[in-house]
This record gives sequence, C-alpha cells and structure tokens, in this order.
Amino acid sequence: MDVKFINPFIAATLHVLKTISTTEAEAGKPFLKKDKSARGDVTGIIGLIGDVRGSVSVTFTEKCILAIVSKMFGEDQKNLNDEIKDAVGEISNMISGQARQALEGLGRNLKAAIPMVIMGKDHTISHITSHPIIAIPFNTPAGAFTIEVCFEE
Amino acid sequence: MDVKFINPFIAATLHVLKTISTTEAEAGKPFLKKDKSARGDVTGIIGLIGDVRGSVSVTFTEKCILAIVSKMFGEDQKNLNDEIKDAVGEISNMISGQARQALEGLGRNLKAAIPMVIMGKDHTISHITSHPIIAIPFNTPAGAFTIEVCFEE
Repeated sequence: MDVKFINPFIAATLHVLKTISTTEAEAGKPFLKKDKSARGDVTGIIGLIGDVRGSVSVTFTEKCILAIVSKMFGEDQKNLNDEIKDAVGEISNMISGQARQALEGLGRNLKAAIPMVIMGKDHTISHITSHPIIAIPFNTPAGAFTIEVCFEE
Repeated sequence: MDVKFINPFIAATLHVLKTISTTEAEAGKPFLKKDKSARGDVTGIIGLIGDVRGSVSVTFTEKCILAIVSKMFGEDQKNLNDEIKDAVGEISNMISGQARQALEGLGRNLKAAIPMVIMGKDHTISHITSHPIIAIPFNTPAGAFTIEVCFEE
C-alpha cells in the first residue's frame, strides 16, 4: 500500500484530537501488521468502499480515551459509559471524514459505512483480509492508541 | 425499516450455519433495539454501502461459537483462538454475501467493506447512528447469538 494513502489518516487524527479535545498526539512510524490483531479497551470501526474495499479501526486504552474525552467535555470522565461510546463514534467519524476528503484529492473516492464502537476490557480487533494492514501508533500525554488501515489493492 | 430487508439476513444465517456447520439455528422475532448495544464474546462486523449506508453485526457467546466451529471443523474447539476468529470472519462474509444477493433481488444494491472480527469476553457493540437498529435473536442447541442490522433510510 502506498504511504500517500496512509498520511491522510495521520493528519486527520492529529487535527481532530487537537481541535475537539486540545490533545496533542504524536504519530509514530507506520508499520506493517504481522499478527493482525489490535488490542485495547475501546475501538471505533469504519468500513470503507469505493474503487477498493477498505477498513479503518481506532483502538484506545481506557486510560487514554478517558483523558481525551475529559478534555473534550471539559469534565473528568472516570468510566467507559455511553458518553465515551458516542465520543469515540464522533472521533472515528471525523477522522474518517477528513481522511476521505484528503484521499479524494489523491484520486481515491471512498464512502463510509455506519461506524461501530466496541467497548470491552482488552478486546482484539482483526481485519479479515489477505491484504497488508498498516498500523499507526500514536502517543498522547495520557497514553497510546493505534489506528489500523487496510485497502484491498 | 421494512421487514423485507431483514428477512434476507435471517434466511442467509440459517442457511450458512446449516451448510457449513450442520447447526440448526432457530430465528426469534426481530425487535427494535433500544439500548443500542449487543453484548457477547465474539463479533463479526460488516459495513455496507450502496443506495444507503448500512451495518451488520453478528455477536456470539463463547460457548455458542465454539460449538458452531467445532461442528464446522469436525474437531472439538476449546478456546477462542485465531481459527475461531477466521471462522467468524468467514461466517460473517457468507451471511453478508448471501443476504446482499437476496437484497439485490429487492432492488437494494449494497457493497461490503472489509469485515472485522472482535474477540473479548463480554464486549459491547454499538452502531453509531440515529436510525433504528433491528436485532434478530437466534437460538442453537449450544446457546444464543444475535444479529443486528441497520440501514439509514
């Protein structure tokens, strides 16, 4: 997969977190997934379809997403509840929307399915495909999160 | 949502489980989701896009999916491992494929994003939409599972 199709997700993620939650995230080096499973406590998922099939997942640890949403709402969040679920849905939607807009500029047109949010201590997420999956690790002052992107091309 | 768009998922599920795993499932009455969260141990997810945005999730308890995959492989499955993950990906793909084919006959054309499988004891799955979500409960000799379907129309 061409890295130019990954960069829009990195830019969108940094921009969305800064804008809605004043969280300064730092993107690590994208890498090719081997074991194909991300692991975390809250995950936003968006299926993509257009010229190619795609998938995006954003997986947070509990500590990291509570800190992000606390800043977003200006109120201390202590538990994974429905408000966190909706916030992760919104964050995933915004990242997907901004990334898809940038990808359109690169000639790749994608539509997004209805997003889903998974909550559950230490769950794994697997993209069911034989194509390469790219993982992008992010760091925030409150901990790490991971985005995984796949296009079947 | 018109029930005629739900029936293809019921028919596809019964057919797929019978064909690949000789599991006789029984469909309960579809109902409108209130709390918007399915709960289980293994979930297959497929995003849909076409004339409308959609989403489908198939959520199993551990006991139920281990029994289904045991019959599928002809070998006793005792743990949620990579083989179970791949089997749930395949089952989800087949249900989505057969249902989409039937929906095409009803004039609804949908494409599927890359499927994803979530594993984790007692996780919740939420479709992030303001539209109604229809849940279909199924029973098998080894326990229950649930399919949730949403179309934004």
